[in-house]
Amino acid sequence: MRVEELETPVPVVDLDVMERNLKRMQDYCDAHGIALRPHIKTHKLPRLAQRQVELGAKGITCQKLGEAEVMADAGLDDIFISYPLIGEAKAHRLAALAKRVRMRVAVDNPLALATAAQAARESGAEIGVVVEFDSGNKRTGVETVGEALALAKEIAATPGLRFDGLMTYPTSAQTRVFLEEARPAFAAAGLEIPMLSGGGSPGAWAVHEVAPIDEMRVGTYIYNDRAMVGAGAATLDDCAMVVWATVISRPAEGRAILDCGSKTLSSDMVAPEVGPGYGLMPDYPDAVITRVNEEHGTVDVSRCAKKPELGERVRIIPNHTCVVTNLHDEVVFARDGEVVGSWPIPARGMTR
Amino acid sequence: MRVEELETPVPVVDLDVMERNLKRMQDYCDAHGIALRPHIKTHKLPRLAQRQVELGAKGITCQKLGEAEVMADAGLDDIFISYPLIGEAKAHRLAALAKRVRMRVAVDNPLALATAAQAARESGAEIGVVVEFDSGNKRTGVETVGEALALAKEIAATPGLRFDGLMTYPTSAQTRVFLEEARPAFAAAGLEIPMLSGGGSPGAWAVHEVAPIDEMRVGTYIYNDRAMVGAGAATLDDCAMVVWATVISRPAEGRAILDCGSKTLSSDMVAPEVGPGYGLMPDYPDAVITRVNEEHGTVDVSRCAKKPELGERVRIIPNHTCVVTNLHDEVVFARDGEVVGSWPIPARGMTR
Repeated sequence: MRVEELETPVPVVDLDVMERNLKRMQDYCDAHGIALRPHIKTHKLPRLAQRQVELGAKGITCQKLGEAEVMADAGLDDIFISYPLIGEAKAHRLAALAKRVRMRVAVDNPLALATAAQAARESGAEIGVVVEFDSGNKRTGVETVGEALALAKEIAATPGLRFDGLMTYPTSAQTRVFLEEARPAFAAAGLEIPMLSGGGSPGAWAVHEVAPIDEMRVGTYIYNDRAMVGAGAATLDDCAMVVWATVISRPAEGRAILDCGSKTLSSDMVAPEVGPGYGLMPDYPDAVITRVNEEHGTVDVSRCAKKPELGERVRIIPNHTCVVTNLHDEVVFARDGEVVGSWPIPARGMTR
Repeated sequence: MRVEELETPVPVVDLDVMERNLKRMQDYCDAHGIALRPHIKTHKLPRLAQRQVELGAKGITCQKLGEAEVMADAGLDDIFISYPLIGEAKAHRLAALAKRVRMRVAVDNPLALATAAQAARESGAEIGVVVEFDSGNKRTGVETVGEALALAKEIAATPGLRFDGLMTYPTSAQTRVFLEEARPAFAAAGLEIPMLSGGGSPGAWAVHEVAPIDEMRVGTYIYNDRAMVGAGAATLDDCAMVVWATVISRPAEGRAILDCGSKTLSSDMVAPEVGPGYGLMPDYPDAVITRVNEEHGTVDVSRCAKKPELGERVRIIPNHTCVVTNLHDEVVFARDGEVVGSWPIPARGMTR
């Protein structure tokens, strides 16, 4: 079956483009002596995580325990949860995971550290812990070297925990500044920094010039999307995922309505300088998806010389591919426009 | 178990508030002689659709065939798909549904009409068809009475199809204007307009003053959300759904990070005049959820006199409850803060 014949709306991933994306990132990391630890949040599929490991990834990154559980069930055995886990219930689940696979977690506060310590006690397994610091993103991560050092000392002093180094997201000029201050401070305290883990697909290709990271956490690069193209990290030809949709109404000369809305594409926008609207229609570059309701996409086609017709199938490159994956129970894979198969997405919706 | 003990992030619905919302809308419709045909997109749960029918709803509204299939499987037997269905595959699925339950669909163009006609032929069942017109929303819906009349005439002349009337969304002053022009035009053509179906929870309580609708399609009223409060259609006490989240990081005095991001709350905003941010924290009215990444919610707590602490559980009233439902495989139900149970959401993700 051809992809144009699929019932819409449907996300379709081109396997050749995906494979090229995977190899290119692995080659980049290999060339610069950086360990690749891909983030599975973009695809949420064990068999793609396995493919990443097969190509040379040293392990995987998850954001939530639920994702890690799905991956461990599928045989992935070196998992980093780059996210602060807090509380009894999370400790129990982390302990259960640590009994079966190598686990590493991130902390930026004493409660997350206590959760990891409890998991190590319960499991009897050693758990790696990295300290997250902020590189200007102003999300999670300690803001000073002093805080990082205090946490690292406590990790090193806690039975069952192993201080694995530092992490940050994304990797920026500030990463280097922080590290240059941290190295002597840690050395003075008798602590080595075993590793610096950096992240972020948009800036990945220049990371060797930005900061001396040892490990790269990237997710979006596997599919790419409009935001990645806007960031200069990919071309339209590198976008492996497209959403196929149908024009279900043409109520006015300048307006087309698509059968995909926020429940298919999400409401995520790209930076204003990248472009307007809720996705890019590569075959209609002058069309703008001006609005998404739950199941409707409103497209301003007034500036298109040739306009999409009622009933026509159209392609959309999503603004943000990771959230599209999360909205669908399954994704279709294709090669040269021919459908290869459809895979359920077992880690979809794993937000806990 | 108390709701405060649930693992986060988790959407929780208060059954008493929900039941009050359901009854209030049914009472309103009864008082004004309007048939209630609730939209299941908000809850996506057959047992709540059944509850709506039990309370007096004449049938239900779905947006997609996938939702209708789930509802028909559960025994709901009077289903309106208020959405243009187009193409062979949709016709086959509509035919299969029409063989088992009473089906009605909306059209605003000849291809959707042809799809309904094909389904009627295939099923041997009569399918009701309503013509959608635009009331100023500029989404789907014909823009002129002439177009509506042309479609209605073709419906009436097509074997297996029954002209059921007109529909619009939302219901506005323009609805009345359109109808006043349509009535004589249809009468002159020898066609009766059997029914006018209006919709939209935000304006529901005033609809009897706005336009003479016979049927009300509303969804959000069952749970309510911040947008509904902003529209003056509900109070905070009427919001049956809250998302419980945990403060997983407090990297700076003015910043708290929650374990819920766009994969839990969506990226939907409310109108600027309603307020900023990606949800409302009722216990911290001066807090603003300024950013959502996939699994992080960044909260500016700098203006809060008392600030949420690390590890604390907090409540969030989502901006848009319908998209929150669609992000979760299950929803927890509670009464007086005590967990009653957790139900899977079978129509989640049914976008085709």
